[in-house]
Amino acid sequence: MVKAAIVGAAGYTGAELTRLLAGHPHFQLQAVTSSADAGRRVSDLYPALTGVDLVFTEPNAEALAASIDVAFLAVPHTAAMALAPTLLKAGVAVIDLSADFRLREAAIFESWYGVAHAAPELLSDAVYGLPELWRDRLLGARLVACPGCYPTATVLAAAPALAARLTTGGTVIADAKSGVSGAGRTPGAGTHYCTVNEAVAPYKVGTHRHTPEIAQALQDIVGAPVRVMFTPTLVPMTRGLLSTVYLEAAEGVTAERVWTAYAEHYRGEPFVTVHPLGVMPSTAEVRGGNRVHIGVALDAAAGVIVAVAAIDNLVKGASGQAVQCANIAFGLEETAGLAAFGPVV
Amino acid sequence: MVKAAIVGAAGYTGAELTRLLAGHPHFQLQAVTSSADAGRRVSDLYPALTGVDLVFTEPNAEALAASIDVAFLAVPHTAAMALAPTLLKAGVAVIDLSADFRLREAAIFESWYGVAHAAPELLSDAVYGLPELWRDRLLGARLVACPGCYPTATVLAAAPALAARLTTGGTVIADAKSGVSGAGRTPGAGTHYCTVNEAVAPYKVGTHRHTPEIAQALQDIVGAPVRVMFTPTLVPMTRGLLSTVYLEAAEGVTAERVWTAYAEHYRGEPFVTVHPLGVMPSTAEVRGGNRVHIGVALDAAAGVIVAVAAIDNLVKGASGQAVQCANIAFGLEETAGLAAFGPVV
Amino acid sequence: MVKAAIVGAAGYTGAELTRLLAGHPHFQLQAVTSSADAGRRVSDLYPALTGVDLVFTEPNAEALAASIDVAFLAVPHTAAMALAPTLLKAGVAVIDLSADFRLREAAIFESWYGVAHAAPELLSDAVYGLPELWRDRLLGARLVACPGCYPTATVLAAAPALAARLTTGGTVIADAKSGVSGAGRTPGAGTHYCTVNEAVAPYKVGTHRHTPEIAQALQDIVGAPVRVMFTPTLVPMTRGLLSTVYLEAAEGVTAERVWTAYAEHYRGEPFVTVHPLGVMPSTAEVRGGNRVHIGVALDAAAGVIVAVAAIDNLVKGASGQAVQCANIAFGLEETAGLAAFGPVV
Amino acid sequence: MVKAAIVGAAGYTGAELTRLLAGHPHFQLQAVTSSADAGRRVSDLYPALTGVDLVFTEPNAEALAASIDVAFLAVPHTAAMALAPTLLKAGVAVIDLSADFRLREAAIFESWYGVAHAAPELLSDAVYGLPELWRDRLLGARLVACPGCYPTATVLAAAPALAARLTTGGTVIADAKSGVSGAGRTPGAGTHYCTVNEAVAPYKVGTHRHTPEIAQALQDIVGAPVRVMFTPTLVPMTRGLLSTVYLEAAEGVTAERVWTAYAEHYRGEPFVTVHPLGVMPSTAEVRGGNRVHIGVALDAAAGVIVAVAAIDNLVKGASGQAVQCANIAFGLEETAGLAAFGPVV
Repeated sequence: MVKAAIVGAAGYTGAELTRLLAGHPHFQLQAVTSSADAGRRVSDLYPALTGVDLVFTEPNAEALAASIDVAFLAVPHTAAMALAPTLLKAGVAVIDLSADFRLREAAIFESWYGVAHAAPELLSDAVYGLPELWRDRLLGARLVACPGCYPTATVLAAAPALAARLTTGGTVIADAKSGVSGAGRTPGAGTHYCTVNEAVAPYKVGTHRHTPEIAQALQDIVGAPVRVMFTPTLVPMTRGLLSTVYLEAAEGVTAERVWTAYAEHYRGEPFVTVHPLGVMPSTAEVRGGNRVHIGVALDAAAGVIVAVAAIDNLVKGASGQAVQCANIAFGLEETAGLAAFGPVV
Repeated sequence: MVKAAIVGAAGYTGAELTRLLAGHPHFQLQAVTSSADAGRRVSDLYPALTGVDLVFTEPNAEALAASIDVAFLAVPHTAAMALAPTLLKAGVAVIDLSADFRLREAAIFESWYGVAHAAPELLSDAVYGLPELWRDRLLGARLVACPGCYPTATVLAAAPALAARLTTGGTVIADAKSGVSGAGRTPGAGTHYCTVNEAVAPYKVGTHRHTPEIAQALQDIVGAPVRVMFTPTLVPMTRGLLSTVYLEAAEGVTAERVWTAYAEHYRGEPFVTVHPLGVMPSTAEVRGGNRVHIGVALDAAAGVIVAVAAIDNLVKGASGQAVQCANIAFGLEETAGLAAFGPVV
Repeated sequence: MVKAAIVGAAGYTGAELTRLLAGHPHFQLQAVTSSADAGRRVSDLYPALTGVDLVFTEPNAEALAASIDVAFLAVPHTAAMALAPTLLKAGVAVIDLSADFRLREAAIFESWYGVAHAAPELLSDAVYGLPELWRDRLLGARLVACPGCYPTATVLAAAPALAARLTTGGTVIADAKSGVSGAGRTPGAGTHYCTVNEAVAPYKVGTHRHTPEIAQALQDIVGAPVRVMFTPTLVPMTRGLLSTVYLEAAEGVTAERVWTAYAEHYRGEPFVTVHPLGVMPSTAEVRGGNRVHIGVALDAAAGVIVAVAAIDNLVKGASGQAVQCANIAFGLEETAGLAAFGPVV
Repeated sequence: MVKAAIVGAAGYTGAELTRLLAGHPHFQLQAVTSSADAGRRVSDLYPALTGVDLVFTEPNAEALAASIDVAFLAVPHTAAMALAPTLLKAGVAVIDLSADFRLREAAIFESWYGVAHAAPELLSDAVYGLPELWRDRLLGARLVACPGCYPTATVLAAAPALAARLTTGGTVIADAKSGVSGAGRTPGAGTHYCTVNEAVAPYKVGTHRHTPEIAQALQDIVGAPVRVMFTPTLVPMTRGLLSTVYLEAAEGVTAERVWTAYAEHYRGEPFVTVHPLGVMPSTAEVRGGNRVHIGVALDAAAGVIVAVAAIDNLVKGASGQAVQCANIAFGLEETAGLAAFGPVV
């Protein structure tokens, strides 16, 4: 068994990681940390995890380093880059769910996050954890930067069309809709039930921090800078994220060519389903699972390819993908510990 | 008092019209018709309308024609064009909430709706009922074609940028999100609570029948054909519709110019609010009212203007706008019978 | 016009009062106060109230006293009893939505609320504002204690059966379900969307502070102490409150006698509807309105009368009832400013 | 591997059974039947079950009998009693999720369901499948009648207090709240999103068919007839069922004695958690899992014990409990194939 800890286990992604790792056949969950909740049982905070026999402890990088093989960091940005160097030096692999190691250039990180990067020397070692696109890099990786929830859906939706050169060089527009759990567990006016219920509301239009991450990934695919317009929208549901991506179609592209590009790109992927042409996914299909369901269409009159990806933001968009990456990094079966399908409604 | 009837009063838009007209200071609701529910009291079907002392009757154009001044048609498409000629001939004004008189060209109607138009001679008389853009035409109108819910939000969002020539001639992309009441009252797999709840799902991407209606209205604004890519998405809420419109910014356009164009375009409009630059509306703000709340942003790096309009699909997107149009057509105060504001949560 | 102010106007009940009074034909809203939001426009906090041209001010009893005829207190308990004496002394009528003047005995208040009562001398002057049961007392009242949301539904559900002596002296059991707006606008773990959504959860079983208020009202009806078992339950919706009341049926009571008692008790009430025997109300029927819909059934085999009342907790359960009481107190039409019916879905 | 089939696999309980059995270590799912959907892939109907490589077939008792060891019947009542005799005769064990074999007396079945029982001779062989109360009877059982969702929660909530003689003989009142999936997959006015959303509504008060089933189970516990008043209430969520049970406390009972009775009664149960005294469960805690979370309180002043049980209606209330019963009947580990915990939000 690989000995694991979750740092920042009291938030939603940390708790979801706890659920996945507590039932994982190859990882053994040794510790779950939370400054705010140290001393409390996991099931006191999350009665859904009744049966998980663990108590939150104070996070302590040195103590952890001595007892585990891998640390999953489910902490806010800046906290991860403070912890990672100590852990890595001690030989502990780091699966980071924060934003700290996603952007390769410290300057871009600093301009979007407004703080200096504390460990820029690690940025070139970090592997961006999107297995469906860059699986090989994850084998044996010691520092994995798990993608944000919006980039996961958006990049997986856009990639095949870009890779197959079905588009012009025009701006990629991503209109993404997310459930409220993406905003985290800390209460605020914006996550109050009465604010969110019966409300659809875009926010941070063109200014959301996931924008440069999407741009970097798309640039890696096409080999040139890609202009990205990204609009996140909050919708009244707990889980689920759907990104509708609009791409200018290159001359002569047909709907069938679009569909074929997607089907071939994701052939054999254990967690990806490409729906028949014109059939669009619903977030309900992937709730609770590590899946990505994709639908594509071509509006020939408008000259636009529409690619839609649906994920569960807490699973494929965060904790499930982290486990998937850790499975690969440690040479385990990629699907280990990740349920094949979720509840039917 | 102007004597009014609602034909097709048992559906959601018909019932919402009933609510509005029953409390209207100048319209007197003489009859509400419904084939399926003839003989039942309105409050049996809609306990929320307890106090409305009306019984559904069989629709009969001749009988209605003899007793009313105006008919609101809240019927499915094709039913309205069957009724309108008789009513108009008898001197009854027609406020049509169906799609039958929205498209000026019968050929376009027929290609999108798959049926021949039964009253093509009336198409040129019909006035498209979007008061904020074409108020003058509504004065004294005898046949008003009320816009669809998606076109109302989308066209109001796009109009100022197009009118002020802030955009290139590129494709206008509208990504709209609607609550479930837009699908009507008839039960089906797609409106089952367990299908819709916790689900966000695009449908009819590029093929929705509101597409040509949006294109016609935008063409009227710019004076030339406009390419439109329209994606409707169902979200888990009862009411509310938000359209996020992406427009390619013309060279040199600034965010301030965008905002000013919107503020000026809608200055003095009783039902429109333009939020400060970058502040986006939520559907919750307009629930239950006849309002449109609009937010705009410019993503200069991506070269895209984003304009977002939020409405209540059953009010400004249907029944409220019908009343607003009827008020204008009959020379009444435009806001009569339309509550100034809705519930705060 | 009667000059009015709302003290504590930034919370949900205060904002809903603002909506109602801003459109009221006889009250003129002079001031809305909020310590936390002084200086901000009402519509900045509540975009749904766009058009209300008011700015929150600091609450100041003396200043208010000089300029208004009536103060609506939408403040937390203890704040109202600090303000009321000054206002009353200055000749300002007080419509209090807090708990401070609901219980007639200071000792009971103190044992349930854990603080001494600051104005016990006013308790005997306060009129409990449930017009359907004690309308006469409200005429000319200067200090109205508006009932809590749970007591409003529960007492109106139980009253006719108790008044008609259809029950034994056994414990009255009230199982009430409330939407989240009842918990107020302050964010917390318990009102986070992800806590509430898809969750039904009883709380404060047998210990909720509305229990003694229900007991006092029922005692007033039967003329003897009544044992009350009260269970509030949070359900995933914004508005709405439904109280299911179980009463031990007296020997020989029939379903028809039960129904007749309810129908007669509420005959002519402008805001109450008694459904046919066995037909139960839904909270959706009363959303946004000041109505109470009541359903009754007798389970003869079990010997239990079931009476169910549905209200909108923010309207009939708070702000609407406050306006209804103020209308009566000031000799206005009882229904003034209160919409006859709400949205149909 | 035990060869299994699901008859009626296209409904919600059938699909949830498919999910559970497709991942079960000891049952091998050979066939899933559905008359309406024969020929379609399971994942076409339920995209969440992508990866389940099965096609719906026509139900045929003889063909099934030849190829399987156990049949799970997820069919409407009357369909199960038509199928069971043939299957049993052929040596196939039957796990019935319908109501057909729950009531021991054909006369009671006939009076509540309005049809004659087609296989009354099997009623005495059927084992009521509530393992926590009658586990021993399930060992080797050939015909299991799985409890209804409401009886599962209600009986598990009431049992310890009744068994420990903490109550008088008074009427047991159960006020239960259920999510919409309990109403099944067939669309209707009552399950339309716009009917259910923001709506809490009791139905079939005192007349629901689960009433005699609850009464029978409680009678088995106390050894004498028990009067039951049962009120089901629909709440706006997909999954989850919470039953709040009110029991008249016997003289001298203390809160501690109540809690201890529950803790001892369910000690060691793999799927039951008894919360600390006064802590009430939420349906959210058990979503997606086969768990029962129970909370108890005593209102000494009112003389009432309140016991609350929360379950997922489709899992512990239906398909999960069916698998649990089948595990026991076939001598497998009771928890096999049933996930230890569900999603954290």
